[in-house]
Amino acid sequence: MRNIIYMDNGATTKVDKKVADKIITYMTEKYGNASSLHQKGQEAKIALEESRAIIAKSINARPSEIVFTSGGSESDNLAIKGVAYAHKKGHIITSVIEHPAVLETVKELKNEGFDISLIKVDSEGFVDIEELKNEIRKDTILVSIMHANNEIGTIQDIEEIGKICKENKIIFHTDAVQSYTKFPLDVRKINIDLISLNGHKIHGPKGIGALYIKEGTKIKRLIDGGKHENKLRAGTENIPGIVGFAEAVKIADFGHIRHMQKLKDKLIDSLLKIENTRLNGPKEKRLCNNVNISFKYVEGEAIGGYLDAEGICSSTGSACSSKSLEPSHVLMALGMKEEDAHGSLRLTISRFTTEEEVDIVLEKIPKIIEKLRRMSPFK
Amino acid sequence: MRNIIYMDNGATTKVDKKVADKIITYMTEKYGNASSLHQKGQEAKIALEESRAIIAKSINARPSEIVFTSGGSESDNLAIKGVAYAHKKGHIITSVIEHPAVLETVKELKNEGFDISLIKVDSEGFVDIEELKNEIRKDTILVSIMHANNEIGTIQDIEEIGKICKENKIIFHTDAVQSYTKFPLDVRKINIDLISLNGHKIHGPKGIGALYIKEGTKIKRLIDGGKHENKLRAGTENIPGIVGFAEAVKIADFGHIRHMQKLKDKLIDSLLKIENTRLNGPKEKRLCNNVNISFKYVEGEAIGGYLDAEGICSSTGSACSSKSLEPSHVLMALGMKEEDAHGSLRLTISRFTTEEEVDIVLEKIPKIIEKLRRMSPFK
Repeated sequence: MRNIIYMDNGATTKVDKKVADKIITYMTEKYGNASSLHQKGQEAKIALEESRAIIAKSINARPSEIVFTSGGSESDNLAIKGVAYAHKKGHIITSVIEHPAVLETVKELKNEGFDISLIKVDSEGFVDIEELKNEIRKDTILVSIMHANNEIGTIQDIEEIGKICKENKIIFHTDAVQSYTKFPLDVRKINIDLISLNGHKIHGPKGIGALYIKEGTKIKRLIDGGKHENKLRAGTENIPGIVGFAEAVKIADFGHIRHMQKLKDKLIDSLLKIENTRLNGPKEKRLCNNVNISFKYVEGEAIGGYLDAEGICSSTGSACSSKSLEPSHVLMALGMKEEDAHGSLRLTISRFTTEEEVDIVLEKIPKIIEKLRRMSPFK
Repeated sequence: MRNIIYMDNGATTKVDKKVADKIITYMTEKYGNASSLHQKGQEAKIALEESRAIIAKSINARPSEIVFTSGGSESDNLAIKGVAYAHKKGHIITSVIEHPAVLETVKELKNEGFDISLIKVDSEGFVDIEELKNEIRKDTILVSIMHANNEIGTIQDIEEIGKICKENKIIFHTDAVQSYTKFPLDVRKINIDLISLNGHKIHGPKGIGALYIKEGTKIKRLIDGGKHENKLRAGTENIPGIVGFAEAVKIADFGHIRHMQKLKDKLIDSLLKIENTRLNGPKEKRLCNNVNISFKYVEGEAIGGYLDAEGICSSTGSACSSKSLEPSHVLMALGMKEEDAHGSLRLTISRFTTEEEVDIVLEKIPKIIEKLRRMSPFK
């Protein structure tokens, strides 16, 4: 097989070899059920609690504040529906650029009788803090604003939002699936009540996630059954997934962030030299691995197709809505015209991305854009 | 490490080496997101659909009727809440010996205003079909009766229950987590609308399950978000888990069933020769890998402890409720006295169990029982 240059790490990542090795051990040797009283069960139980402690420590939380789920979407659903159903009624504030796991969940809650406010964002994707403040009502029970956007990498000022929520005694949830291990999060320094995390965006396994739930947060479980996870999530614990997730968190470090930052900046600076381009999302306060550029007069899917033919994996937006032909709801929220939103390309790198790969991509893209623009009826 | 004799396969199983190898390939090489349009994504998408076809074929369903979930508990929740919420109100019938993922779910639905009827079972754990018929009302929307019981192995007459549900136009759900690949299921021959399946009881991975949803069944999703799984379950598909699950299904065969059947019968026949014992659950119509015996005058947990000290993993009931000191709800439902329910031991074998292991266990148990009975204050 030819070498693939994988720049779609916002969609999912390659599992680290060390992580995979751990997972195999817990599948084929230490395979017990963590609820079993015998030695095989206790071995699994110890691994479960050690992993929980690692995840907790990574955001400066207590182990008892971490609940394992099957991934980011379940974590978002548990956070939002869990708070909504525990309160029975009320008002929820979120933003127009959230992940579908948040937007579709609040849409469902709206059908069920909850009130929802969607906050707008500016041209770089930052939520309008003044609008957020103005939308707060006496019956507001929850604010859910993502930490870093999955399409354009905008990192929100969650410290400020956390302060506002605290002053108004409102529960604050953030989906940190994209930023986790890429941007420090300290729940003792920033006021956050709920944080969605997951494994497969950080070179850990798919099918595993976590929800940080600050002690004392009023929340109801979604999956009923056994007394697992402090009665907040029933189902036999996915020990291999959990152990692999924790291993991925242990491996992540600041050196990786600096590495990605450097290559990301190189990609952005070089691509913006092509005529009629714009960076979607901010230059600063941007996720260290996210590049999102609009190329006027071309279709993002066409660029992606040509790149794919060259062995380069990219995307036009989020994988979660790739089947839809509608323009990205995130790019439209920035105030872009539909045709410009269609011309966007997302490159999401990882700590495994090399400068050599970046150089190859930077050599290919201008040629593809030129070719496409020559054929374009819009120009 | 010493050799362990693992006879707690009802709690969870060792992942087959072939399954683990496949999983690793899909974690470290074919790691794409199945929603991505590039080659890495399409490679994952193909694996997803091939796996879906394998699971579908195993129960003679259509691939479009299989929705992947994070496991048996989520499948049970999706089946029961999914049907309940799609109907908004109504009456649900289930049995007293269901898994907590069913019992706790209907308890929750009762709190939300649904009507619930719990059907009793006879001394061998068979649900009372006449009572079931009598409980059916005009507003009954769902009957949920497990295929094989996780503690005592009783295999219900789901063909008969399916007929009754069809005659009365009621949706029929069965939790087949314990029986899957151990007892044939054909959805074109038996009337079933929803079947919960999972991976980790069949030498597949933890954290993956499926729900068979017959075409046309009125059901609502529980996890909102992206359009994955035919819009019935949001979240990036756990491709390594799904591929591993399908591989485990492919490996399972009738030879394994016969092997387990033989060793299970040997265990039961030999253990019943010990004085003051009784078999919990039936001799016939019993899961091929389940042994559950009550030993009068002793505590099941004490037997389990001594066995564990000898390197033999067993359980007293289900792992899902092992932390509870209450007697098993299943054994109590058979009409057992509390002290007898406490004296029960469950041995659940697998296709990896050898006759030599069975012989060792059969040598150890009588000695342990004798020792415990000598010390027993109840005798």
